[in-house]
Amino acid sequence: MSFMEQVKKRWVENNTLVCVGLDPDVEKIPAKYRELENPLFAFNKDIIDATAQYVCCYKPQIAYYNGVGLERDLELTINYIHESYPGIPVILDAKRGDIGSTAQMYVKEAFTRYKADSVTVNPYMGGDTLEPFLEQKDKATIILCRTSNPGAVDLQDLEIDGKPLYMHVASKATNSWNRNKNILLVVGATYPEELKKIREVIGDIPFLTPGIGAQGGDVEKAVKAGTTPDGTGMIINSSRGIIYAEDPSIAAKSLRDEINLYR
Amino acid sequence: MSFMEQVKKRWVENNTLVCVGLDPDVEKIPAKYRELENPLFAFNKDIIDATAQYVCCYKPQIAYYNGVGLERDLELTINYIHESYPGIPVILDAKRGDIGSTAQMYVKEAFTRYKADSVTVNPYMGGDTLEPFLEQKDKATIILCRTSNPGAVDLQDLEIDGKPLYMHVASKATNSWNRNKNILLVVGATYPEELKKIREVIGDIPFLTPGIGAQGGDVEKAVKAGTTPDGTGMIINSSRGIIYAEDPSIAAKSLRDEINLYR
Repeated sequence: MSFMEQVKKRWVENNTLVCVGLDPDVEKIPAKYRELENPLFAFNKDIIDATAQYVCCYKPQIAYYNGVGLERDLELTINYIHESYPGIPVILDAKRGDIGSTAQMYVKEAFTRYKADSVTVNPYMGGDTLEPFLEQKDKATIILCRTSNPGAVDLQDLEIDGKPLYMHVASKATNSWNRNKNILLVVGATYPEELKKIREVIGDIPFLTPGIGAQGGDVEKAVKAGTTPDGTGMIINSSRGIIYAEDPSIAAKSLRDEINLYR
Repeated sequence: MSFMEQVKKRWVENNTLVCVGLDPDVEKIPAKYRELENPLFAFNKDIIDATAQYVCCYKPQIAYYNGVGLERDLELTINYIHESYPGIPVILDAKRGDIGSTAQMYVKEAFTRYKADSVTVNPYMGGDTLEPFLEQKDKATIILCRTSNPGAVDLQDLEIDGKPLYMHVASKATNSWNRNKNILLVVGATYPEELKKIREVIGDIPFLTPGIGAQGGDVEKAVKAGTTPDGTGMIINSSRGIIYAEDPSIAAKSLRDEINLYR
């Protein structure tokens, strides 16, 4: 099943828009994991077992593995999700973007090596750099549009013909790059106005929405601004707010319920 | 010595602006290397030994190692350069860009894990995402400005207040982000007009210029458009044109000489 089909199934059958970001900092996870051979995988495994019933997907952030040479932990984590919880797709958050020959290697990284179902990419270098990802019909390509950080205004808000740059990205994604219907857009929860403006022009293209929790995004505003008329169309990510919670299971369930209140 | 100091020394003392891109595709390198435990490192070592006297720096592209799980080969390659050819700095071509906490992990990846002297980054997410890199005073941060690929026009050429987006990136880099004087800009050799326009506003900020060779960039036009008045200010990269040449040493020497003809 493609990424899109899997997510849509989870939205409906499990009634959840929650994505858990698997971004374990080896210096912040509990000491009992740090002594193990695969500390990040061991930590992730417990998070996954505690949260699986409440999520529509998982999103490991590759920097937390690459930064400390624990690629093996990332491989084990994604394998574990596929084997233990088939039907929950995985987004590799890597924000890649490079010329064609290099992009092919990143495609290999995300989909052959790590067996992710989807990958995040940066659009600054243009459509030809996204093409190797978009060609993977059953995989999804998640393009940065309006990100959740304060500095997003620096380039993304610059106005071109009366419209900010992020709206041009949204238009190109909708009208030029989405022939395989396998695109999603990253739009942060910290900017509900922007979520609304973008939703108005992109139809039912799903959002990946970070920025809830540690980054200060408001769940009610984000959900009301970003969902499609059927109350889906969003993958709402929480990382630190769930993985470092006293009880990750309760944290994931609470976020699911809070989101569902406003759908 | 900082990245900038090392490069300037090589420009003058070794009279070269050449950078060799260490982008070995495990399926394209000669068969004799493929059987070894560290095939990419073994291949790179021969390239480095053949070209060191002609280069001002090396630039491994991380995708070629990440795509096939050969991170160890990248570590060995950078260590080898530092130990055998001290004074030749290393650019890790990774085009990273992410929110602060994640960017910190990418800083760790580039500078602690791989011991690179410099890293390429993508500016789409804004200044706060570059900050963790810029804070590393002795390291250099190389920001994508006008890239060498055809799709660069898609976003980078969009006009804001009469100036294309890439000129806004160049201005921000020059006026806001460069307080530690450790920024360079990526501007492709395939667009000499753009090289010239950007050079006019950024003073002596150096360029990292890909696009020579396989991508079709013209050496004469690029050098005349991009160098500073003293005939330096550019790091001109060639990857496939040198690493897959029949004699990489001759290929590197020829490129150095061709560039020097027009400085």
